[in-house]
Amino acid sequence: MKQFISVKDITNLNELVNEALALKKDPFAFETLGKGKTIGLVFLNSSLRTRMSSQKAAQNLGMEVMVLNAGQDAWNWEFEEGAIMNGTTVEHIKDAARVLSEYCDIIGIRCFAGLKNKEEDIQEKTLSLFMKYATVPVVSLESATLHPLQSLADCITIAEHPVTKPKPKVVLTWAPHIKSIPHAVANSFSEWMQASDVDFVITHPKGYELDEKYTQNAVVTTNQEEALKDADFVYVKNWSSFTDYGQVLPTKEDWMLTPEKLAVTNSAKIMHCLPVRRNVEVSDAVLDSENSLIYEQAKNRIYSAQVVFKKILEQL
Amino acid sequence: MKQFISVKDITNLNELVNEALALKKDPFAFETLGKGKTIGLVFLNSSLRTRMSSQKAAQNLGMEVMVLNAGQDAWNWEFEEGAIMNGTTVEHIKDAARVLSEYCDIIGIRCFAGLKNKEEDIQEKTLSLFMKYATVPVVSLESATLHPLQSLADCITIAEHPVTKPKPKVVLTWAPHIKSIPHAVANSFSEWMQASDVDFVITHPKGYELDEKYTQNAVVTTNQEEALKDADFVYVKNWSSFTDYGQVLPTKEDWMLTPEKLAVTNSAKIMHCLPVRRNVEVSDAVLDSENSLIYEQAKNRIYSAQVVFKKILEQL
Amino acid sequence: MKQFISVKDITNLNELVNEALALKKDPFAFETLGKGKTIGLVFLNSSLRTRMSSQKAAQNLGMEVMVLNAGQDAWNWEFEEGAIMNGTTVEHIKDAARVLSEYCDIIGIRCFAGLKNKEEDIQEKTLSLFMKYATVPVVSLESATLHPLQSLADCITIAEHPVTKPKPKVVLTWAPHIKSIPHAVANSFSEWMQASDVDFVITHPKGYELDEKYTQNAVVTTNQEEALKDADFVYVKNWSSFTDYGQVLPTKEDWMLTPEKLAVTNSAKIMHCLPVRRNVEVSDAVLDSENSLIYEQAKNRIYSAQVVFKKILEQL
Repeated sequence: MKQFISVKDITNLNELVNEALALKKDPFAFETLGKGKTIGLVFLNSSLRTRMSSQKAAQNLGMEVMVLNAGQDAWNWEFEEGAIMNGTTVEHIKDAARVLSEYCDIIGIRCFAGLKNKEEDIQEKTLSLFMKYATVPVVSLESATLHPLQSLADCITIAEHPVTKPKPKVVLTWAPHIKSIPHAVANSFSEWMQASDVDFVITHPKGYELDEKYTQNAVVTTNQEEALKDADFVYVKNWSSFTDYGQVLPTKEDWMLTPEKLAVTNSAKIMHCLPVRRNVEVSDAVLDSENSLIYEQAKNRIYSAQVVFKKILEQL
Repeated sequence: MKQFISVKDITNLNELVNEALALKKDPFAFETLGKGKTIGLVFLNSSLRTRMSSQKAAQNLGMEVMVLNAGQDAWNWEFEEGAIMNGTTVEHIKDAARVLSEYCDIIGIRCFAGLKNKEEDIQEKTLSLFMKYATVPVVSLESATLHPLQSLADCITIAEHPVTKPKPKVVLTWAPHIKSIPHAVANSFSEWMQASDVDFVITHPKGYELDEKYTQNAVVTTNQEEALKDADFVYVKNWSSFTDYGQVLPTKEDWMLTPEKLAVTNSAKIMHCLPVRRNVEVSDAVLDSENSLIYEQAKNRIYSAQVVFKKILEQL
Repeated sequence: MKQFISVKDITNLNELVNEALALKKDPFAFETLGKGKTIGLVFLNSSLRTRMSSQKAAQNLGMEVMVLNAGQDAWNWEFEEGAIMNGTTVEHIKDAARVLSEYCDIIGIRCFAGLKNKEEDIQEKTLSLFMKYATVPVVSLESATLHPLQSLADCITIAEHPVTKPKPKVVLTWAPHIKSIPHAVANSFSEWMQASDVDFVITHPKGYELDEKYTQNAVVTTNQEEALKDADFVYVKNWSSFTDYGQVLPTKEDWMLTPEKLAVTNSAKIMHCLPVRRNVEVSDAVLDSENSLIYEQAKNRIYSAQVVFKKILEQL
């Protein structure tokens, strides 16, 4: 593996998931693979789960970890080629990416959507420019449009809960939130589910359609109840409007996931990437039920990162 | 050891101190005990000594260390069970504690008293909820009411300076400060001294009585001179009023510790947990004298943490 | 080596450079030399290159690294001996330095010039007081007047590009900037070039004379074109006025380095310590040319730090 920024960077999802599950059973099986190698984790945005799981994954492989907290204000990058840098930007992204490449064998970078400029976000301005100039493999720790390490962890979690029917039904359901939230987790989950052997349905209120680029082969409905019927896995996530870019639109119905709504499912397992606004996105009764996989997903973030780092290390 | 939040978590203080002193002589004697284990150090408040000594202690035992600087503003936890999280809190403490437990084998957490809400502080709201939900051993890196790693380091330091009489006289004396300071160090020192084979006296101005829960078997006096008489160890510390909770009350007499006041002691050794407001709490002449143990205390923070982590690792 | 704060702390520059180049070829040759040793990296100012290269250098030698981000506001040190600390300072530098010495075998510290008080900066108030009280070897990670780890990396870089004439001509040329920038890199480069076997010339606009202490044996001219003639290496750097201390003075001519200006050089290699204000200090065409050594300099920061840490470890 030469980079990991979307599902397109993997060759066989089933094999990758199985390899991750093998690492979960024996996390230190490759404890010397990363000896003498350094991973740099660059956070342009805050992080808890990604920060800790990536660090642990790298340490399990014997790598050294260097964390760089680069708040966008504190380390203001210039993005324009040829810019006369007499303003507020202090370093060109081309220099930042090249210099970090001198110190790291792999670079993980987190760069959220700003949700202000749709074109910049869609084009992954920060990630794509960083990768253009970096000379070592780059791993996305969540970019403007995708969060592949989360999605791989989600696939691992689903694989740990096999169903008796040929294909599980997996539903991604929009949930309410008080803030404007990026599309990366939803886009990415959709992308990975379409690469999986599952029946995949997306449900959300009108106006919350995701970028079609990520949903083209998915069943999409604004009828939450219909979507939830016979579901085996229900993935709950808020996102802001893509059409009215970054806006929080008013919704008439109550989209919070409750035990009542789950009655029509096939005793569905519940998933959420966390952090979760309890009793806004999902009720406590659902999150704290036996069917909740939220902490298993969090744990699997370790093995999703570890299998990716392992694949990259093997080709360094 | 399953947790370390107060003196009640240890079984034999003398044995623990001797084990710490053995680690001080040979810090790497158990350098593989923590191999493959990760300690997470979560700081809701700032830290220098605790941060560095805990990190070094863990590294001496071969553990991996992950530090999480979680300013209370930056990562606003919800504490209420059943809360509808449509406000400023972004993650419920139950989710934070559970997720961190997935990534760490031991969690250290620092959560100071807010000094605004007496009941919340006395009940150790943050620490107790965190421990309720965490699924791995928790070590206090200073909580609202206690600072046990500091107190254990203090016991180690006292043990390194044996006296010729049967029991040393140890005095905890209040000292002036310009800010409102929590009671944790004073409460904790009192608790550990009462578990030690020493004559223990607390002295402070009227109005600065500590929570009786921690001072019940101690001699308490508002006469500093009488308290200091024949003292072998003098521990200097400011704390705010407990009765007028969190307030800085005016004091008539001068409570700063000076060489003159020490004349009545038995050439007492001087202790302070640092940082110290020089020439406000204690005079330079005292802090920089041969009898000052302040830097030895700081060094012993390593071995106090190391012996605690070792005890916990042995029972994982 | 007992400390590393200027060129005076080394005995033989050529040998040191050769030892660094040997480490570059085999970075893990001494991977157990630092086993059980801890380096503390204390940043009173922000850092990217120094932070990451020092960390990697220490890890290559098997050391543990503890990073302390001590913003000057967050951890306000008292500097005055005998001060009554009833104001905004929370810890005396003597206590900070002594306590850090208890936890670290080597301490690296970054303390920029404030550019407000010339005397304080010239006297290296922070660094010199810190070293007075620290009880372990101290390494400058850039102080008020010097940046020796950068200069050593620059010497390594120059050594990797031998010229055919007996001595290379090295030119330090002032460059425009919109902010008030310290003199440390320029002073330090001048100091190390005068200790090297090179023809060294400094050029800058009138009013930008450096402290003579660092330039006494150098040729200094305000004629940039004359300075650049036949140059083999051109080091570009902005600094504020030393005479009008910390001021940005207006300059009539255009001092930005461009390909046109380089025509009179001997196909000079271009150096800059980064970060660089592109098209303000130097044009893109120069920075991105084949002759640019800026990323090699960044990489050599690892080996400059590594050789210094190695020398110190060998004498611990």
